Amino acid sequence: MKTVIVGGVAGGMSAATRLRRLDESAEIVVFERSGYVSFANCGLPYYIGGVIEERDALLLQTPASLGARFGLDVRVGHEVLSIDRAAKTVRVRELASGTESDEAYDNLILSPGASPFVPDLPGISRALTLRNIEDTDAMSDALAAAEASGGPTSAVVLGAGFIGLEVAENLVHRGWDVTVVELADQVLAPLDPEMSALVQARLEANGVRVLLGQSATALGASDLTLTSGETLPATIVVAAIGVRPESQLAKDAGLAVSDRGGIIVDASQRTSDPSVFAVGDAVVKVDAVDDAPTANWLANPANRQGRLVADVIAGRAQAFPPVLNTAIVGVFGLQAAATGWSEKRARAAGRAIRVIHTHPADHAGYYPGAKGMSLKLVVDAATDAILGAQGVGESGVDKRIDVIATAMRGDLTASDLVDLELSYAPQFGSAKDPVNMLGMIAENLRDGLTETIQWHELEAEVARGVQLIDVRTPGEFARGAIPGAINIPVDDLRGRLDEVDADSIVHCQVGLRGYIAARLLAGHGKRARNLDGGYRTWARA
Amino acid sequence: MKTVIVGGVAGGMSAATRLRRLDESAEIVVFERSGYVSFANCGLPYYIGGVIEERDALLLQTPASLGARFGLDVRVGHEVLSIDRAAKTVRVRELASGTESDEAYDNLILSPGASPFVPDLPGISRALTLRNIEDTDAMSDALAAAEASGGPTSAVVLGAGFIGLEVAENLVHRGWDVTVVELADQVLAPLDPEMSALVQARLEANGVRVLLGQSATALGASDLTLTSGETLPATIVVAAIGVRPESQLAKDAGLAVSDRGGIIVDASQRTSDPSVFAVGDAVVKVDAVDDAPTANWLANPANRQGRLVADVIAGRAQAFPPVLNTAIVGVFGLQAAATGWSEKRARAAGRAIRVIHTHPADHAGYYPGAKGMSLKLVVDAATDAILGAQGVGESGVDKRIDVIATAMRGDLTASDLVDLELSYAPQFGSAKDPVNMLGMIAENLRDGLTETIQWHELEAEVARGVQLIDVRTPGEFARGAIPGAINIPVDDLRGRLDEVDADSIVHCQVGLRGYIAARLLAGHGKRARNLDGGYRTWARA
Repeated sequence: MKTVIVGGVAGGMSAATRLRRLDESAEIVVFERSGYVSFANCGLPYYIGGVIEERDALLLQTPASLGARFGLDVRVGHEVLSIDRAAKTVRVRELASGTESDEAYDNLILSPGASPFVPDLPGISRALTLRNIEDTDAMSDALAAAEASGGPTSAVVLGAGFIGLEVAENLVHRGWDVTVVELADQVLAPLDPEMSALVQARLEANGVRVLLGQSATALGASDLTLTSGETLPATIVVAAIGVRPESQLAKDAGLAVSDRGGIIVDASQRTSDPSVFAVGDAVVKVDAVDDAPTANWLANPANRQGRLVADVIAGRAQAFPPVLNTAIVGVFGLQAAATGWSEKRARAAGRAIRVIHTHPADHAGYYPGAKGMSLKLVVDAATDAILGAQGVGESGVDKRIDVIATAMRGDLTASDLVDLELSYAPQFGSAKDPVNMLGMIAENLRDGLTETIQWHELEAEVARGVQLIDVRTPGEFARGAIPGAINIPVDDLRGRLDEVDADSIVHCQVGLRGYIAARLLAGHGKRARNLDGGYRTWARA
Repeated sequence: MKTVIVGGVAGGMSAATRLRRLDESAEIVVFERSGYVSFANCGLPYYIGGVIEERDALLLQTPASLGARFGLDVRVGHEVLSIDRAAKTVRVRELASGTESDEAYDNLILSPGASPFVPDLPGISRALTLRNIEDTDAMSDALAAAEASGGPTSAVVLGAGFIGLEVAENLVHRGWDVTVVELADQVLAPLDPEMSALVQARLEANGVRVLLGQSATALGASDLTLTSGETLPATIVVAAIGVRPESQLAKDAGLAVSDRGGIIVDASQRTSDPSVFAVGDAVVKVDAVDDAPTANWLANPANRQGRLVADVIAGRAQAFPPVLNTAIVGVFGLQAAATGWSEKRARAAGRAIRVIHTHPADHAGYYPGAKGMSLKLVVDAATDAILGAQGVGESGVDKRIDVIATAMRGDLTASDLVDLELSYAPQFGSAKDPVNMLGMIAENLRDGLTETIQWHELEAEVARGVQLIDVRTPGEFARGAIPGAINIPVDDLRGRLDEVDADSIVHCQVGLRGYIAARLLAGHGKRARNLDGGYRTWARA
């Protein structure tokens, strides 16, 4: 049995090595268009920034090391041009020599990945992208040349997604002036705006200029013009707008491809041809929340799919599960992470949802060094299912998002988070962990014990005359308050009930005292909605 | 409705504040024997060590603050002496004045906690314990007095459990010479010995003398004698051997109490008297693995039970789930954590199990600063259920144990861990997270793709003549090898198959290359068992 694999990173190489471990007699040929396989693609921005100092650190395996250990026939610098499904052969070009030949397969695995989208603009040919080692070398060389020339070192990064922000941070780390240009009205689209605002603030605090709602119209030799008409100095331009599945090979071979260009596969990663499989960024996945087709560009599913395909080819039935799209990015010391759906996505889909914002510390406040974070949970109002979560903070966000992603995989409800038994010592967490607290709030909302209002719903309510009560201390109130709010500290509330309307909105700094106040008022027959996430979420949004 | 609560920390205070939020008209009286409520009991060792500098940081609430915010009647320095269940009253003594009085209740919540066990030994009265603020003050004073005297500052800590080790570390931090004496043959009983060995080594590397298999027989004025006959200098002695439920009050009132002294409750935390509830360290819990009665002394379940009892009293049905006993301790920069059962516990219970050891890094190895950790997973051989997990390392152990504890709560199997979608960027994790890797190994074991042998099974197999092949590099082999092993590097194995017996044991440094070798040999018709956890686990054990 001979398996040919197109693409030697992540999914492709996971498939190759797993298949060898399952079948010592299998013939396995891997074609990789670039000059490198199994490189650390998620590390490329950090090599650009000098955080990863040695280029060799990016090269996890070589054709030789894979040959010795796994008996793989790995051919870099080889592009697969076409697939003859009837003959079960692929046409391959050795790029250095231009020589073409046919390679037969019993099973074919496509792991072509996704290519950076580069808009068709005047002067765009000088834009750099960052997908592979060759790109990395080119960007390194361009940066080094500019630095050596003693001229300006201004970079414009097009796109404020995960890779765009990683590149921006690393260019700053290298001493460049950086502007990020993003068409959307926020950075980091997987987050909701009041969460991504924290990331934007961190970027700006580190000298990155962030321009939202704009895109480039043309690139000059050393500048770039925006839709606003502004011209930015741009010694280099990095295109990190997004990626597109590299599915042309599959499409040309008549394999089923979605409208958005993803290769369509079943749960075994089999394409519309039973001898052809596809994995990774190029394939259509199933969304865990609504079971609809979706794309994702993440390393974990790509590797998982590669391993799974090897199992299937070796006769071991496996099914790839729907994806949560769990992702994280570091931005100047902040962790920004998400899993599942955002509020905006759920609202766009017409879901009835409950939304929870909290601002906990990563560990017990009484132990030195606690860092604050902001968490958000999106909950299905009908079923209490967790639809998604987001977190931004300096420490411990990864842990909470991973716990919630695991709870989602285990079909735990939002209220079930109350009962998670998480590790606690004061350096590492809290007796009531931030995830437990999300569960408590979810349970209170589910059971109607508390009613909340979101930051984006507040203005209209205040405008129609609903009383807004700030239950923080007079000192907090004096340092900054929401327009129209009156101040009744929570600890004074029982004695000042006559000042409270029958229907009011209460708020505190993060939501906890507001909740206590709302319950107190409910106990006295008054309806009080609590501003979710408190003053902090409102002020950031 | 009047609720009386005995004990104003963790469970008791969680019950009191939740009950107020649920019922503004409830009368709530809290009796606390000590002078303080709602203090940070998990922080006490760190105040002793000066890590937490301000004593006030330990005092999260006061009777006055709880009165103002929650309308609670909190009476510190009040001991509840007895319960008259027929009359529904408790007899209370105000400790300062000695005045006694009766307090009526509709519902009574017992949250008495657990008291440090102090063995009955000559001279034991000078041993210190660390349960509450008064204990903390006494220990602080004793340390300060010894330090001020300019005399010796030698401490002996009896017991190498969580609190014992925290006290030991903090005493070292304060500059004391510390010896830990433990009756068992390892530190940290919830871990298996090859895992706790890492913690012991870290203690010893920081100057702590660790004496296992010993206990004290007598305390002198400035020394302590051991069962071995050795006498240790002991300016102070700390008893951290364990705790006992404070259930005398419940027992005297005729409430059902287990043989081991725990108050017996149902899933609503109701005792054998429907008007009396009990929560926290004093109550019997249900073990999540075997549904048997168990004890635990952890903050998370105590707080959860307190909240739950308030719900039940307010008419909201709730059931406390079985406990996993998830716990963590910091020891000189190491995190040691566990959830569920250990291997030794599972073997003692006669369970057929699969055991997995790994030694991953906390984040991608190509990104600077990755720290190693050791993980262990215990799996039910019949069902693939996760029975428990342990981890020891400098970073990221808390996250992996929390993820596994969440997977256990969600009834995911060990093999299901393959499919967890965890957050990955190179600073924070790996594309195949350590938890995913545990799942891959579990799946391979479940499906019979690989057969492993544990460190404690190796010696007997080698003794009966089974070939042991070290598949590491010659350099690694030269730096230290298992007696009797021959060296065939994995990358040479295909060319040296004739040197391999039909039945052999293979091993590498951590287990991965050994697995590759075992699969390779299986592909050539040879049985090869892989030494689980590799040389590293073997060498540590």
